[in-house]
Amino acid sequence: MSFDIPKGFLFSTIEAAIKKPGRKDIALMYSCADASMSGMFTTNKVKAAPVKLDMIKIKKGTGRAIIVNSGNANACTGKQGMKDAVEMTEIIANLMGLKRDQVYVCSTGVIGTPMPMERILPKIPELVKGIGKSTIQDAASAIMTTDTFPKIVSRKVSIGKKNIIISAICKGAGMICPNMATMLCFIMTDANIEKQALDASLISAVGKSFNRITIDGDMSTNDTVLIMANGQAGNPLIKNDSDDFRIFSSALTEVAYELSRLIVKDAEGASKLVEVEIVHAKSDKDAEKAAFSIANSLLVKTAIYGNDANWGRLMAALGYSGAAIKEEKTDIYLNKLQIAEHGLATGKDKEANDILKDDEIQILIDLNIGNGSAKVLTCDITEGYVRINAEYRT
Amino acid sequence: MSFDIPKGFLFSTIEAAIKKPGRKDIALMYSCADASMSGMFTTNKVKAAPVKLDMIKIKKGTGRAIIVNSGNANACTGKQGMKDAVEMTEIIANLMGLKRDQVYVCSTGVIGTPMPMERILPKIPELVKGIGKSTIQDAASAIMTTDTFPKIVSRKVSIGKKNIIISAICKGAGMICPNMATMLCFIMTDANIEKQALDASLISAVGKSFNRITIDGDMSTNDTVLIMANGQAGNPLIKNDSDDFRIFSSALTEVAYELSRLIVKDAEGASKLVEVEIVHAKSDKDAEKAAFSIANSLLVKTAIYGNDANWGRLMAALGYSGAAIKEEKTDIYLNKLQIAEHGLATGKDKEANDILKDDEIQILIDLNIGNGSAKVLTCDITEGYVRINAEYRT
Repeated sequence: MSFDIPKGFLFSTIEAAIKKPGRKDIALMYSCADASMSGMFTTNKVKAAPVKLDMIKIKKGTGRAIIVNSGNANACTGKQGMKDAVEMTEIIANLMGLKRDQVYVCSTGVIGTPMPMERILPKIPELVKGIGKSTIQDAASAIMTTDTFPKIVSRKVSIGKKNIIISAICKGAGMICPNMATMLCFIMTDANIEKQALDASLISAVGKSFNRITIDGDMSTNDTVLIMANGQAGNPLIKNDSDDFRIFSSALTEVAYELSRLIVKDAEGASKLVEVEIVHAKSDKDAEKAAFSIANSLLVKTAIYGNDANWGRLMAALGYSGAAIKEEKTDIYLNKLQIAEHGLATGKDKEANDILKDDEIQILIDLNIGNGSAKVLTCDITEGYVRINAEYRT
Repeated sequence: MSFDIPKGFLFSTIEAAIKKPGRKDIALMYSCADASMSGMFTTNKVKAAPVKLDMIKIKKGTGRAIIVNSGNANACTGKQGMKDAVEMTEIIANLMGLKRDQVYVCSTGVIGTPMPMERILPKIPELVKGIGKSTIQDAASAIMTTDTFPKIVSRKVSIGKKNIIISAICKGAGMICPNMATMLCFIMTDANIEKQALDASLISAVGKSFNRITIDGDMSTNDTVLIMANGQAGNPLIKNDSDDFRIFSSALTEVAYELSRLIVKDAEGASKLVEVEIVHAKSDKDAEKAAFSIANSLLVKTAIYGNDANWGRLMAALGYSGAAIKEEKTDIYLNKLQIAEHGLATGKDKEANDILKDDEIQILIDLNIGNGSAKVLTCDITEGYVRINAEYRT
């Protein structure tokens, strides 16, 4: 597959054997011109060193390069971890003649183990020399941990008669819950857009995508979404709240939503993509509570895996979600087949079980008590999930 | 094994093939004299019909008999479900010459399927006739669902020179979270105790036992704890807040805690019992949040299953628990071996992994920021858990 790449972005990847040898595990993304940057980070109180560092850098709002490693999260590594993160950005800045503020760093992998700087540092000159010799696919592969395929999405839109490209890569797999857990996402665009508008469009896109997926309810120490906009498309400046802003924003949301789907599809050991939609809740907030309660229920997820349309488990998860519900008003549909009406079985067990054999399932629940709604993406849980996560560090 | 049984309690069990034939699936517990009763019930908004019915009956505070079936939860069964629950208590009351108010009913099993009253009703006369012919073990076996062994605990204490016996049976297995999910527990005692004291001792015992265990974070529609105290021991009346009350209460808490351990030990597909203790949290509430966050983390539970002392997952779960924590003050111990000091690895990975091969693990986390503490019991998660719950209705 080939992807449209925004103007002025180049890639490099190398193998530093961070966790073990045999694959490229460091990627460098480089913008030929100063780029506006926005970022969103994990809300976990335990934050990895690179997250803490990028949260400071992002305040200036510009950047030129991002170095990303897989294999080690550089989290729970104390002062040495912060020193290592700083050193990774400084060596890149020095070798490439960039300002230190303009180089970002992200890490993903095992928590609590010091970074193997003795293997990383000697490789950096090769990484810098290789700029432009790798593709976006190479970069997407280098940042993978337990992902089974690289995740890349591109969109092209026209603004002021100029073509603008948004390309993004991400890594996901397990430990994904509301707030983007163990998820790294790098979005590059050649749009010319003011910083305030870039911030607003990123917040909106993440709210409708990465913050609406859940794999196992865990939230990581390293989640980061960074966007770089280098203006090389030459379009008239996109200002906040303008028509152009809406065009850009909607394309960015599409990119983020598509990546979210890819993350859930590739969730560790999952076999099915499950969309949980709640309608007519008392409020949007209630709908969200109900949707996440179902999406995080192990009993629901194992029943889906087992092709068992055990809708009682859906009712139970609704009941403890904290959302207002009326049992006798609740309707439940699986891919449009009604399996519960006013809180009672419709007797369609056999057909419902057959529907669950699909690899994409939609659970629609009509609470019939208000106007709130929410949609959440999740997956089933399989023996494979347990196996992968039991053996992660071996 | 033989158990001390409180005076004046008799048991009967029969097979009604509620889910399928081949085992006894209805138990009747009977007190020869009027008993004081207290109860605690699921806080799930979706409540099974028998729960709703018992919540009304318990207001009178007395009882003589409890009929319990396994195989069908009589939940999400609408008006017919309530009619069926009422009928089960009325037919017992009629045949045994008891007041309707004094007969309670509990159900556990599949949700959303109507009760097979055509198989249950014809068997009730046999159940009543059999009173005294079954043991407490038979009753404990009849109420099992995916439990692999019956759960019975007895304690004897002396009050006013009289021996008082507290015996209890319960069923547990999956879907156990804070508030006693899919847990039925029946406690019988021959103590002579005033109603207010009985209520207080039950609330205290449940708070320190069943509400401190979690298997998978799900909470059921049917959880019920009922206690009957028939006064047959002939002790002077136990009044609230007296010394005798404290003796009784502490014995009751022991019984409930021991049953909680048995429930977690027998959790669906679990291989290890895990105690999570948090000390020096900012408050008890924070400690509880932190303990449950770890106890419910799938990534923690799978790592324990895999004998991988991946303490980074503990730090991550602390970080998103909502409790106040300071990464650089956090100490972590596995069965007394310190694996993290001030938020950093101690380098004891190998020894720690060996500890995880035990079937009882203690995780002790010292947050070093206050005086709050909490203890929660949980278990690991295995491929077996997924298998059992995927195939539950087949």
